[in-house]
Amino acid sequence: MKGLRVRGKIWIEGPEGTFLGYGRMVLLERIREYGSISAAARSMNMSYKHAWDLVESMNRQAGKPLVETTVGGKGGGGARLTPEGEKWLALFRKLLKHLETFLEKETGLLPG
Amino acid sequence: MKGLRVRGKIWIEGPEGTFLGYGRMVLLERIREYGSISAAARSMNMSYKHAWDLVESMNRQAGKPLVETTVGGKGGGGARLTPEGEKWLALFRKLLKHLETFLEKETGLLPG
Repeated sequence: MKGLRVRGKIWIEGPEGTFLGYGRMVLLERIREYGSISAAARSMNMSYKHAWDLVESMNRQAGKPLVETTVGGKGGGGARLTPEGEKWLALFRKLLKHLETFLEKETGLLPG
Repeated sequence: MKGLRVRGKIWIEGPEGTFLGYGRMVLLERIREYGSISAAARSMNMSYKHAWDLVESMNRQAGKPLVETTVGGKGGGGARLTPEGEKWLALFRKLLKHLETFLEKETGLLPG
């Protein structure tokens, strides 16, 4: 009975299924860090196509894009988070903090 | 943005990984209903071996058995929940209720 604890995960669901979850949060963070969807995908061992599909899914479901891409110019195209993307990232981090607090409280209900 | 909601799942983790989660809860409920591990497994499209492994994992990690089996006698062996099993079932249902409340509250934080 020793060492039992309550664990959990959360995600935000929209009309198409997952809108934002842990993996998508990391992808947004990496896009911000690298300024590029392909570099972000590579850093997560994710295919470019999969990363792109996730970004499109988020942009579509939010109504406003979370990620903007720029094409051409010196050094080719890039990607960056929009204010909408920053807002969702901050909100999801807040939900994860709340989840941590909730899980600790529930773990306290376990017999030990 | 319409129709977004926070969803989640929880489970209890012990020294061997999952101790009790949604599937194990249903298995315990079915064992109680059918009085038999094999009938419970069949009702969930689960192999007898898998069901047995899950029961063993719960019994081992709790220190006291959650499920007791009886062998022989008229009609062959059976299985039933122990008071320990009932206790864990009730506790996990309570955690799931708390999770529902938590998820509703967090959904209220989403822009809409």
